[in-house]
Amino acid sequence: MKHTNKAPVHTAEIITIGDELLGGQTADTNFIHLAKRLRDFGVRVVRHVTVGDGEDEIVTALREAVRREKLIIVTGGLGVTPDDRTRAALARLAGVPLVPDHELLREIEVFFRDRKIRMPSLNIAQALLPKGARKIANRVGLAPGIRMEVRGSLLFSFPGVPVELHALTEDGIVPFLKSRNGELPSLERELRTWGRGETRVAEILKELEEGEPRLSISYLPEDRGVTIRFKSGGRPRTSRFDPESFREDLDRWSDSAADLLGDAVYSTRREELEEVVGYLLVLYRKTVAVAESCTGGKIAAYLTSVPGSSAYFRGGFVPYHAETKISSFGISPEIISEKGTVSEEVARGLAEGAREQTGADFGIGLTGIAGPDSVEDKPVGLVYCALATSKETAVFEWNVIGNRARIRDRAARSALNLLRLHLIRGGGR
Amino acid sequence: MKHTNKAPVHTAEIITIGDELLGGQTADTNFIHLAKRLRDFGVRVVRHVTVGDGEDEIVTALREAVRREKLIIVTGGLGVTPDDRTRAALARLAGVPLVPDHELLREIEVFFRDRKIRMPSLNIAQALLPKGARKIANRVGLAPGIRMEVRGSLLFSFPGVPVELHALTEDGIVPFLKSRNGELPSLERELRTWGRGETRVAEILKELEEGEPRLSISYLPEDRGVTIRFKSGGRPRTSRFDPESFREDLDRWSDSAADLLGDAVYSTRREELEEVVGYLLVLYRKTVAVAESCTGGKIAAYLTSVPGSSAYFRGGFVPYHAETKISSFGISPEIISEKGTVSEEVARGLAEGAREQTGADFGIGLTGIAGPDSVEDKPVGLVYCALATSKETAVFEWNVIGNRARIRDRAARSALNLLRLHLIRGGGR
Repeated sequence: MKHTNKAPVHTAEIITIGDELLGGQTADTNFIHLAKRLRDFGVRVVRHVTVGDGEDEIVTALREAVRREKLIIVTGGLGVTPDDRTRAALARLAGVPLVPDHELLREIEVFFRDRKIRMPSLNIAQALLPKGARKIANRVGLAPGIRMEVRGSLLFSFPGVPVELHALTEDGIVPFLKSRNGELPSLERELRTWGRGETRVAEILKELEEGEPRLSISYLPEDRGVTIRFKSGGRPRTSRFDPESFREDLDRWSDSAADLLGDAVYSTRREELEEVVGYLLVLYRKTVAVAESCTGGKIAAYLTSVPGSSAYFRGGFVPYHAETKISSFGISPEIISEKGTVSEEVARGLAEGAREQTGADFGIGLTGIAGPDSVEDKPVGLVYCALATSKETAVFEWNVIGNRARIRDRAARSALNLLRLHLIRGGGR
Repeated sequence: MKHTNKAPVHTAEIITIGDELLGGQTADTNFIHLAKRLRDFGVRVVRHVTVGDGEDEIVTALREAVRREKLIIVTGGLGVTPDDRTRAALARLAGVPLVPDHELLREIEVFFRDRKIRMPSLNIAQALLPKGARKIANRVGLAPGIRMEVRGSLLFSFPGVPVELHALTEDGIVPFLKSRNGELPSLERELRTWGRGETRVAEILKELEEGEPRLSISYLPEDRGVTIRFKSGGRPRTSRFDPESFREDLDRWSDSAADLLGDAVYSTRREELEEVVGYLLVLYRKTVAVAESCTGGKIAAYLTSVPGSSAYFRGGFVPYHAETKISSFGISPEIISEKGTVSEEVARGLAEGAREQTGADFGIGLTGIAGPDSVEDKPVGLVYCALATSKETAVFEWNVIGNRARIRDRAARSALNLLRLHLIRGGGR
C-alpha cells in the first residue's frame, strides 16, 4: 500500500463527522481551518460533506468521495465512546480488519500510568488501526491521525477536537502537500467594494470576464460590501500548472477590475472599511468626530474598533432625543418642528456640532429611520448623512433597504465610506 | 407535479452552494440557521453537502440527494451573476426548461422603476423558473424561493443572502412543516447566562445532571454568554414518543437549573441581554444615558439596536480624548493627571456626567484599555464601569480577557448586565 504517486494535488474533498454538526449547534470550524490551510498550498476543496455518527452514513460518504477525489480528509469519530465509528468505517471501506498497534497501546498505557489513572478499557480503541494504515503521531492528544490509501485515493482521518486537528494538519497534511505541491504563492486576489450592488459590479466587469476565458470571478454580497474574488477558471489539474504566470494573470485581472470599478474599491488587501478610513486619516493627519442618531453609536464603534484610533477619533455623540439634538447641537426648535428630526437640516447641524464641540477636522452627522416603524410620516430606511469640513458641509440622502439591524449597519458603513471618498478625492481638506 | 403526500417529515438533506464556503473564508451560517429551524419541527438533518458554483457539481449533489432523501433544501446560486448556476442545475435535474415567470418579471421592473435605476439586463435571470416549479415570494429581496418536486422528493431552493434565506425559511419551509408535522412543542429549553464561565456553570448544574439520567445538557460558550441547552438523552425516534410528558420534563429541568444559577440567567426565552435591559427599563419607566470610552459606542449601539429604545435611551457620548473627558464631563484635570484616564474616578465622572447632561435616571460610565497596547502602565483588559443613579454611584473594576474586539464586546455587555442586575434587584430605583 505504499504511495508512490508524486503528482501535485489540486483538489480535495473534506468529510466532517458528528451529529452535533448536523444539528446546527456547533459551527464547523474544523472544516474552515482545513479549507484555509489547503488553499495555502493551492489545493481547492471541491466538496464538503457532513454526516452523522452512524457507521453506515460514514461508509457511504467515504465510498462516494473515493470515487471522485484523490485526496480526502476526514475529521471526527476517532474518540473512544460508542458513538465514534470512523475507525470501523475506514476498515470497512478498505475491506480490511482493525488491528491493534502495539506501540500505540504501550504509549496509551504509559500516558495513564504517568497520571496514576486506571486506563479505561474504552481507550484500547485508540490503539486500533485499519490493517495497512499508517498512524500520524498526535502531539496534543491520545488518538493518532490515520493515513491510508484506498483504490488510488489517499485518506487522512483526524480527531474532531480542534486543537488536535490543527496539530495533525501541520504534522500530517502540510509535509505531504509541501512534498507534492512545493511552496506555492497565494493563488487568489480579492477586491472589496462599497456602494454598488452585486449586479452592477458584475455588469461593470462583464466585458473583462468574457474577454479572459481562464478568468473566473465570484461576487460575494457581504455585510462589508460586495467582495470580488478572482481565480483562474482553467486552474489546471494538470502538471503543466505554472504558479508564476498564474500569479501574474491574477494581478493583471485584479488591476484591470480595480480600474473599471474606480473608487468603489476600498481595499485590495482584505482590509475593513474602517481600517482604510483610519489609514487615510493618519496619512493626512486629520481627525474626526461623529454625532449619530439612528445608527446609535455604530459609526463611533466602527471607527474605534481599529487599534490606534485614538490618534484620529475625537469623540462621538448619540443624541437620541429631539431635546438632546436641540440643546447640545444648536439646532433650533423651529427647524425640528418644521423639518422633523429626520431631515437634511438636522444631519447638517449634527455634523457641524460634532466638529465644533470636539475641534475635529471632520464632523459626521447622521439621522434616519431604522424602523420597524416609520416616523414623522417618513419611510423606514430614509437616512440623511452630512460631512462637515472646514470649508463646507455636504448632505446626502439615502434610501437604505432592509430590517432595523441592516439599515443601521449599512448607514454606518455608508457614512464611513463618505469620509473615505472625501479623503481620497480631496487629499484630506 | 402536485404534491399530495401528507406524511410527516423526519429527515432532510441540506445542500449549500458557493466557492466561498469551500474556501473556508465564509462560515456557513445559512446551514446553521436551517438546521436549527428544522429541529424546531422535529426534522433531523442527516447530511449536509457543500459544493462550489459549478453547474455539474450542483447537479451531481442534487441527484445524490434526491436518491436518498424526501426533503432537500438548497441555498445559494440564485443571484444574477454568471456564477449563479442553481436555476439551471434544478432545471437539468428535473429535465425541464427554464421559463420566464411574467409576474416576477413585472415585479422586478417595477422595483427598478420605483428607484429610478435602469434595470440591468442580468436581472432578467431572477424571473426564470424551472418549468413546473412554484415560486415563494421573497419579501426582503428580488430573487424568489423555488419549490419543486423531483422523482418523489421535495426541493426548496433559496438565495444565499442570509436575510433572504431567513425570510424564505419562515415563509416557505415553516408553513410546509407545520402542515406536515403539526405544531410540535418546542423540544428544547435554553437558558442564557452572563457573568459565569462555562466550567463554573457546569459545576453548578452537575448534581442536577447526574440525578436525571435522561437529561442531557450542553454548554455553549458564546459571545452573548454561556448558553445552556436541555435535551432528553432518551429523545426517542420511535412512535411511543410522548411530547407532553417530554415537555414537562424539560420545563422541570430548566426551572431547577434557573433556580441554581440565580440572577446569572438573563433569559429563558432566547432574548438578547439588551432586549432584557430594554424590557426592564420600560417596565420601571426609567431612562438611561451612556458615556463610554474604550467600548467606543458599543454600549449605545447595543441599547439602540432594540426597536422602541428611544423610549428609554436618552443619549450617548464617546469622549475618546482626555480633553473631551475634562471639558464635557467636569472631571478635573488634576484627577486625570493623578489617577489617569483609566480610573475609578473617571468612570464615576462619566456616569454622573451622562446622567446629568441628559436628565436620564441612570448613567453608565465606562473607561478601560482595549489594547493591543497598555496605557498609563495599566494592563490591557482593565476596565472601570460605573452606574450612577439618583441616590449613588457604584464603580466596578473588571479584568477582561481577550483581544481588542473581545475586550470591547465583553465590557459593553458587562455594562448592560450591571444595569440589568440593578433593575431586577432594586426594582428600578
